[in-house]
Amino acid sequence: MGQNLILNAADKGYTVVAYNRTVSKVDHFLENEAKGKSIIGAHSIEELVANLKRPRAIVLLVKAGPAVDAFIEQLVPHLEKGDIIIDGGNSHFPDSNRRYEELKEKGLLFVGSGVSGGEEGARTGPSLMPGGHPDAWPAIKNIFQDIAAKSDNEPCCDWVGPAGAGHYVKMVHNGIEYGDMQLICEAYDLMKRGAGFSNKEIAEVFAKWNTGVLDSFLIEITRDILAYNDDDGTPLVEKILDTAGQKGTGKWTAINALDLGMPVTLIGEAVFARTLSAIKEERGRASEKLTGPQPKFDGDKQKFVDQLEQALYASKIISYAQGFMLIREAGREYGWKLNNAGIALMWRGGCIIRSVFLAEITKAYRENPELENLLFHPFFKNAIDKAQDSWRQVVASSAIWGVPTPAFSTALSFYDGYRSARLPANLLQAQRDYFGAHTFKVLDEYASDKLPKGQDIHINWTGRGGNVSASTYDA
Amino acid sequence: MGQNLILNAADKGYTVVAYNRTVSKVDHFLENEAKGKSIIGAHSIEELVANLKRPRAIVLLVKAGPAVDAFIEQLVPHLEKGDIIIDGGNSHFPDSNRRYEELKEKGLLFVGSGVSGGEEGARTGPSLMPGGHPDAWPAIKNIFQDIAAKSDNEPCCDWVGPAGAGHYVKMVHNGIEYGDMQLICEAYDLMKRGAGFSNKEIAEVFAKWNTGVLDSFLIEITRDILAYNDDDGTPLVEKILDTAGQKGTGKWTAINALDLGMPVTLIGEAVFARTLSAIKEERGRASEKLTGPQPKFDGDKQKFVDQLEQALYASKIISYAQGFMLIREAGREYGWKLNNAGIALMWRGGCIIRSVFLAEITKAYRENPELENLLFHPFFKNAIDKAQDSWRQVVASSAIWGVPTPAFSTALSFYDGYRSARLPANLLQAQRDYFGAHTFKVLDEYASDKLPKGQDIHINWTGRGGNVSASTYDA
Repeated sequence: MGQNLILNAADKGYTVVAYNRTVSKVDHFLENEAKGKSIIGAHSIEELVANLKRPRAIVLLVKAGPAVDAFIEQLVPHLEKGDIIIDGGNSHFPDSNRRYEELKEKGLLFVGSGVSGGEEGARTGPSLMPGGHPDAWPAIKNIFQDIAAKSDNEPCCDWVGPAGAGHYVKMVHNGIEYGDMQLICEAYDLMKRGAGFSNKEIAEVFAKWNTGVLDSFLIEITRDILAYNDDDGTPLVEKILDTAGQKGTGKWTAINALDLGMPVTLIGEAVFARTLSAIKEERGRASEKLTGPQPKFDGDKQKFVDQLEQALYASKIISYAQGFMLIREAGREYGWKLNNAGIALMWRGGCIIRSVFLAEITKAYRENPELENLLFHPFFKNAIDKAQDSWRQVVASSAIWGVPTPAFSTALSFYDGYRSARLPANLLQAQRDYFGAHTFKVLDEYASDKLPKGQDIHINWTGRGGNVSASTYDA
Repeated sequence: MGQNLILNAADKGYTVVAYNRTVSKVDHFLENEAKGKSIIGAHSIEELVANLKRPRAIVLLVKAGPAVDAFIEQLVPHLEKGDIIIDGGNSHFPDSNRRYEELKEKGLLFVGSGVSGGEEGARTGPSLMPGGHPDAWPAIKNIFQDIAAKSDNEPCCDWVGPAGAGHYVKMVHNGIEYGDMQLICEAYDLMKRGAGFSNKEIAEVFAKWNTGVLDSFLIEITRDILAYNDDDGTPLVEKILDTAGQKGTGKWTAINALDLGMPVTLIGEAVFARTLSAIKEERGRASEKLTGPQPKFDGDKQKFVDQLEQALYASKIISYAQGFMLIREAGREYGWKLNNAGIALMWRGGCIIRSVFLAEITKAYRENPELENLLFHPFFKNAIDKAQDSWRQVVASSAIWGVPTPAFSTALSFYDGYRSARLPANLLQAQRDYFGAHTFKVLDEYASDKLPKGQDIHINWTGRGGNVSASTYDA
């Protein structure tokens, strides 16, 4: 990834110094890919630093974790006040918050930047999500925006916010990526196991979808993957082991959502779906013991595919609405002023979740930067209105067929819960007061002398017992 | 809670020393509830310690967090080697792990004990889940088992395991409690908003359910709550604000599940449902903007109620199966030998999730302590077989009606995913290899020279690009 970013910057007219602790890699790069370009090789940190103009801007692309701290520790003695250290790895945002503070004390400007797009994106234009010390931005803005992907001639790179905000937004990006991938897997599974489509048919569906509202990188590569045959002429994807890892950023996003108390259920289910995939041997044993229905599809295939497209689209809208709810809460909790339109634009091109759809999100937040929820914008509201009958049919069918759709289903449950002025949590509060004297509040319209507005009320539901309190019990 | 535990122990013939830093509370207790009982008041820690026989066993019931450490710090100088400090609060298990180690170094025996049952349980017999230094158990076993609830004449208290294992199991208990409560709320909501039942009808349903497979404390109190009318003769529960907090143990359980990579989806959804309930004002605005179907129920009410009972029962089985999967993984991860039958027995009586159902879990694990999954036991397998058509109908109806059932739905998705020998994660692995060269493994049955068994394989899906690697990218 580092090499590709360097080549990308050199192509844009910048002179770049390349350093790797394995010196032979630098030489090999200089003699091959970098030959004839404005790229200088450095064989030591001293050489790297000596070759950079001030304020120096140094991008680290090392594995997230202790390696980042170790590299920073090596660099710091060679740097001068105002120099910029940019961590372009997938660091966890609390680490970036810490590094930002530590380097600020030393007069150095830390930037944590999300970089998405994989190898190819790094070479041709990644999505870049930089955040950190605001004084660094004027110095790096031009090169960052020049090497970034472009969408409708705008760079998919803008300043995210202070401290670890850049890595935070990259984390949420990755969480959303988990969700998008899970939704696609469920659609594939419904066509395959639910409706009995062949891989060729499914590839054609994704090809078609890629020309409509779902037009996106992940739909496009799914089309290619499903159409890719192994040497024996059968689809390679069907030979791949169905277990996925999840130790990274998706998990962080779900945990952060729990910590901030935001119902980011679709990413949560996507992470859990990976953990379920991982216990494959146990699933194998379960498949021999546990029963379920045999899906038998005899409906209209095109109608089903159209319903599925709408279900996937509506679920995706929910996932992004949840993601932006989380970002909103993070802004509040961490005191960051975050720019939603800019974030959507950064995700619009270059990165894994890039899609036509994100242009609509950018537009919605540009029209109304204070938009409370994506679902309130007419574009998305109308999309859900149009999609919801199909969405409900698909979720209902999957339950009857026995094909698991945790992400489709949780998206629908979220939508129906979110649009409920009253949820059944009144009963839950009554239960908590009953067994633990946790108290409840009354709905404003029912306030009375006995049930005073805004106050914590405890009722002796049973007529038994005394005036209990529950200071140590927390349910 | 402390007073009630003391009274409980005194009733069982133990002499107990009561201490509170607010000395007047001790005096008031001694002059009233404790009068004439084998209870000694202490006005200082010195007095508390002086009045206890060695090895001293001191139970703290203070708010989880720094208060526990502060109290321990005050106590330690007065104690002697072999004395026992028992934290009976809702401490987070990593804190208990730490306290166990810190006190072990000082020659003191730490016990972290889950205590469930609320005020009334503490007085008449709580569920107790002690874990920590194993040398403490012989000294406290009698009093713990004497004051604990009894189920079929067995105490709902046994040694859980080392270090923080007791608080760990209490955490999972509370997570399961979150799940049980959410399931009940969804059933109530489906009857109320889905099928248009009156509160009186719903109370009767819960009364009936409490005589069948769902017989449990939470169903019982739900019956009472729904039947409880305010002074104006209308159900009090309908006047209660529908927002629930979630900053505690349920959240910890969901985060731990994510950390350990176990698909404990039902608790996850239950926690998220509370967070959605908490943004009530936003939901109010959403309810005015977002559309949905109008449920119209014209079916057979009794048939619907019977289906709902089965759906609730099946979902509950899934939740407990997930909980025990998490406990199994924790045992593996933390090196604890945990006794599933004992855990089920501890939850069988005294605590909030007590139920007839837990007797079956105890029995299943006694029959086969190595049972891989609850769902593999004939009792639960048969229960799901019987329930599943109804369960699927209820989940499908809720999707069509627009009544949110995140817990019912995720339970069904889990069941269908768990019994799938092959999940669509093969496509997900192909996507990750396509965009990030993350590699995949081949299914054993398709291994070949080109796709070697057990190895990490990367395919150039596009024919473009070089031999990319993705050491810093983690999706």
